[in-house]
Order: sequence, then C-alpha cells, then structure tokens
Amino acid sequence: MNRSYTLTSIGTVRSPHLECEGMPIQPLGARGFRGAIELDPMYEPGLADLTGFSRVIVLYLFHRSTGYSLSVTPFLDTRPRGLFATRAPRRPNPIGLSVLRLTGVEGCRLLVEDVDILDGTPVLDIKPYVPLFDAFPGEASGWFGEACRDPAAVRADRRFVGEDGTESSDA
Amino acid sequence: MNRSYTLTSIGTVRSPHLECEGMPIQPLGARGFRGAIELDPMYEPGLADLTGFSRVIVLYLFHRSTGYSLSVTPFLDTRPRGLFATRAPRRPNPIGLSVLRLTGVEGCRLLVEDVDILDGTPVLDIKPYVPLFDAFPGEASGWFGEACRDPAAVRADRRFVGEDGTESSDA
Repeated sequence: MNRSYTLTSIGTVRSPHLECEGMPIQPLGARGFRGAIELDPMYEPGLADLTGFSRVIVLYLFHRSTGYSLSVTPFLDTRPRGLFATRAPRRPNPIGLSVLRLTGVEGCRLLVEDVDILDGTPVLDIKPYVPLFDAFPGEASGWFGEACRDPAAVRADRRFVGEDGTESSDA
Repeated sequence: MNRSYTLTSIGTVRSPHLECEGMPIQPLGARGFRGAIELDPMYEPGLADLTGFSRVIVLYLFHRSTGYSLSVTPFLDTRPRGLFATRAPRRPNPIGLSVLRLTGVEGCRLLVEDVDILDGTPVLDIKPYVPLFDAFPGEASGWFGEACRDPAAVRADRRFVGEDGTESSDA
C-alpha cells in the first residue's frame, strides 16, 4: 500500500548553476564548481562535528521536476533505460543525491565543491559520507560501464526540462 | 524559506528485521541478511536494465521515527555529535539511505542482501549505485574514523525508539 508523507526543506542550495541546460552531470563533471548549502539557522547545532568529514551526502528535491516516464534516455547514453537504472531527475519521488566535497562550515552554511545542483534547490537532508558504509569502488555499474566514455565531459541538455522551463539535472 | 512537499512511497521493504532493537548498523553489519523491495506493480517497467548493477541505493522513510534532536549519541559512539554528522534515524526529514547488494529482479521485486532496514519500511526511490559517482574510498570520516573499532559488530538498542514502539535504525 502506497502512503503519502509530507517533508519540509531544511535549507537551500546556492550554486553557480542557474539553469539546467549546460549543467554538469554528477559531481564528477562538476569539479571546481563551488557553492553553499544554507540551512535554516535553527538547524545550526546539528552541524557540529561535520568538519571532520571531507564529503557529505546531500539529499534534495528536483523542485522543478514534473511528472516522469518509466523509460528514459539518459544524458550519458543513447538508448532508453529503465528509470530506476538511471539517475534522471524526473522520478516518482524526485529526490536527488549528490556526494559533495565539504570544504568548510560557517554557522549554518556548508561550503561545498563539485556542485552539480541547481541554484535555489530545496535541501531535505545532510548526511556524513562514510567510506566504510558508502564506498564500493569495485561494483558493477551496468549500462554506465558500457555507455560512458567520458561522463565528466557530458553536459545536460533540455531533455528533462519540464513544460514550465528549467529543470534540475542528475544523470 | 522552507517549503513542504508531499511524497508517496513506491513500494515496501521486506526484511528479516521485525523490530529495531538488535538490528545491524548499516549494510556493513548486515551481511547475509536477505530481503526484497516490493515495488507497486505499476513501476515494473522502470526496473529494466537494473540487473547490470551489483548494488542499488535505496532511499526510504524511517516511518516509525518521530521528532529529532540536533545532538545525538550515535550507536557507534559514546559522546554526543551533531545530528547531521550522524546517520541517526530521527531527523527533520527522516529519510534513510542504504547501499544494498542487488542479487536479482523478479517482476516488480528486487532481491537484495546486506539489508539493514526494518520490515515494512516505505520505499521512496531506487537508484543504481555507480562507483564513478558514488565511491570515494579515501575520504575522511570524522568521528567515525576515531570512534568505530568494529562497526559491523555493533547492534541497535532502544535509544532511537519512539514513544510508540519500534524504530528504524541507521547509525
């Protein structure tokens, strides 16, 4: 039985990416892009101890995403793939996930690099990236392994842009 | 400005963990625990091409989590830490993230291992785990690196159990 839940953003991404088209695909392609995560000041005490981590997992909403298709041709491929085998932004629950480099914490602001997220994106959660839990370098990566010659060089186009204009980008 | 969004679960976790107490902490401590992710049948076409991936990122709701504290003593440590520097389940947006081993896809069911999620947990999203995007084995892991002698051996206790009974477990 599917159930509904209401989530409220805890902050906002500040990023040099003001529109989807031309955005890098994943933090891998976003090296050097700096930004910030501005949390609501009430959450500042929750950022204690975070500076010891060199990366954070940022969960956010693809807030300009509308609708979805269960078969999509990703930015990094030329043929349709099952939606849940892609990182495309238009999903039943349009939650984005980026593993960003953390360079500092100033009050309720996280300074981050490798930002592949649209400016103004609502943030749902911040988690510490723990290699012991999260890093599995040897795992099989399906069509990504076959299709991607140079994912860092690929940029987003308008294929996931909603009818209302710009759109976040994740794969 | 914080905004609210309504998300609807796309399926349910089936797991041998029927209550929080005694659960493994993270998939690292859950090796050998098998389960399934049962998606609503309408989403089955979205699972195409997923079998080429050996791990999936599962985003889910800690559905029995109520409230949160911005300072928590995690299962894996003995002193309080900032909430966003932990993987504790009681969070402003109680979204859990587990990187599970994918062993098969049968219709709208994903067969998974290393399950550290409570039975009956609502699933929000499935993403392919792509080492190129997600694996950073050399990153600094803050207090986890100092505090955790043997995280695979640690089990959950009742510290994050809500007043209403059992609770999911994530760190």
